[in-house]
Amino acid sequence: MTGRDEIEAAQARIAPHVRRTPLIESAGVSLKLEFLQHTGSFKPRGAFNNLLTRALPAVGVAAASGGNHGAAVAYAARRLGVPARIFVPEIAAPVKIEKIRAYGADLHIGGQTYVDALALCEAYIAATGALGLHAYDSEATIAGQGTVGLEWERDLEALGAPKLDTVLVAVGGGGLVSGIAAWFAGRVKVVGVEPEGSRALHAALAAGEPVDVAVQSIAADSLGARRVGALNFAILREFVDHVALVSDEAIRAAQKALWRDFNILAEPGGAAAFGALASGAYAARAGERVGVLLCGANADPAALAS
Amino acid sequence: MTGRDEIEAAQARIAPHVRRTPLIESAGVSLKLEFLQHTGSFKPRGAFNNLLTRALPAVGVAAASGGNHGAAVAYAARRLGVPARIFVPEIAAPVKIEKIRAYGADLHIGGQTYVDALALCEAYIAATGALGLHAYDSEATIAGQGTVGLEWERDLEALGAPKLDTVLVAVGGGGLVSGIAAWFAGRVKVVGVEPEGSRALHAALAAGEPVDVAVQSIAADSLGARRVGALNFAILREFVDHVALVSDEAIRAAQKALWRDFNILAEPGGAAAFGALASGAYAARAGERVGVLLCGANADPAALAS
Repeated sequence: MTGRDEIEAAQARIAPHVRRTPLIESAGVSLKLEFLQHTGSFKPRGAFNNLLTRALPAVGVAAASGGNHGAAVAYAARRLGVPARIFVPEIAAPVKIEKIRAYGADLHIGGQTYVDALALCEAYIAATGALGLHAYDSEATIAGQGTVGLEWERDLEALGAPKLDTVLVAVGGGGLVSGIAAWFAGRVKVVGVEPEGSRALHAALAAGEPVDVAVQSIAADSLGARRVGALNFAILREFVDHVALVSDEAIRAAQKALWRDFNILAEPGGAAAFGALASGAYAARAGERVGVLLCGANADPAALAS
Repeated sequence: MTGRDEIEAAQARIAPHVRRTPLIESAGVSLKLEFLQHTGSFKPRGAFNNLLTRALPAVGVAAASGGNHGAAVAYAARRLGVPARIFVPEIAAPVKIEKIRAYGADLHIGGQTYVDALALCEAYIAATGALGLHAYDSEATIAGQGTVGLEWERDLEALGAPKLDTVLVAVGGGGLVSGIAAWFAGRVKVVGVEPEGSRALHAALAAGEPVDVAVQSIAADSLGARRVGALNFAILREFVDHVALVSDEAIRAAQKALWRDFNILAEPGGAAAFGALASGAYAARAGERVGVLLCGANADPAALAS
């Protein structure tokens, strides 16, 4: 199971390639501004950790993605000089598709949802021998995403700010939250945040194992995994406290509040954790020191303006 | 002349009311993300320092502004329970006007440019006895804006990052850059950045005193002062190395690059310093450690999308 040692090693490996994203304090809450990462989401952490630890065939790498993982793999592959083929479903946001193209990847758009794109990607991998980079269900991905937790803890310490009691992290397939949970390993309460209409982790925790769920949410293109990963769940069942569910309305309100109060243009999935706190879906107790991860900003400015 | 002691005192005074804005490293450049400040620009620093040090008449305070100072005075006044009347010219960006209204100030829109709004504001002050908060030509304003420099230096030290050799700071009337120059006082090279079409400091340095200039720039609503302040110039003539001039085209390109590479939606004036580095208007020498201040983000998302 991925743990602190693997995350420390990942940090040393990827540090030259990723941004150490900053923190801002607001009313006692620590916000980690991971949307400032290359490509606009946390995903390059896992992508680089994969590319820097695994044997890369000449045909290159392949990934299926709602968009953010694809953009990250495309970016990392270009930086390391590796060919990349990216499969995204038709629901992927145009801004993400444009980024994948701009990073020079071989882009394939097809299928209704992430699961359909994943099937196409797996067929391609089977046919060509490309190295598949899973968006979440991979030890190298989990360790890479876990560096978010490592940085957060160490930067608070460096800045002389109080430690966290609790972190709120949005959940899609579980890559990010499992990495962060593996880093904190019970030392900080980790709360997953899922849309009411896309609750793969909530359902898995209830069932005691990953199960399929229906997906229908404004945040589906980043948090729309139908089932959490097996490797992720092994960590999450042990180290996640619970899942807070947020409505699409709360997510939209969080996007508006982040723009109004911080001039931050978060995408729906990137605003979900903030929405959990703002809407009361996660009710902090008096004096509780909460961290909120802003994990993605690949939104369409025009949509926010409307 | 405002100096380090006044800036230290301002920091102690305003710290409970303003955000300590974070830093991010990118390719050896330190970006200070001051657009994350309350109201979307650095201006609340000076506004709070004024309100917390000066005697406030019952009629309240008044300010003229291209928009950002007005939003900051409105915000600070509301937080401290003081009535505020804000004068903005017709060129003020709608997003700024909306903020001033949302903060509950008594808003007066009139005049073509900042200078016209200032004349209206001064007439109002003369008639009512309201306390005028000047956008830049005030010791309390300068000391407040200088806290940007203080934070930047101390946070780099806390994070174990290298010290700055040079900072690039956008210039309108000179409040921000004079505060930062007063803080660094020659220990760091301070370079002002002005639009080619709005160069009040450039002209003042050439003339040896503040002089009027014509103003025509995409950034006019934040950097469009016709003349630098007298108090500001006394600091700037001593502690600013020179002014780098940027074209409106370079400012637009900087806005696009900040969105593409950082998911940051800067307003034209907030992107100007970044544009100076990106366009080569300021050419850093090899190994020079440069800081770039991103000072404002009150842009219209729809305009960026187009």
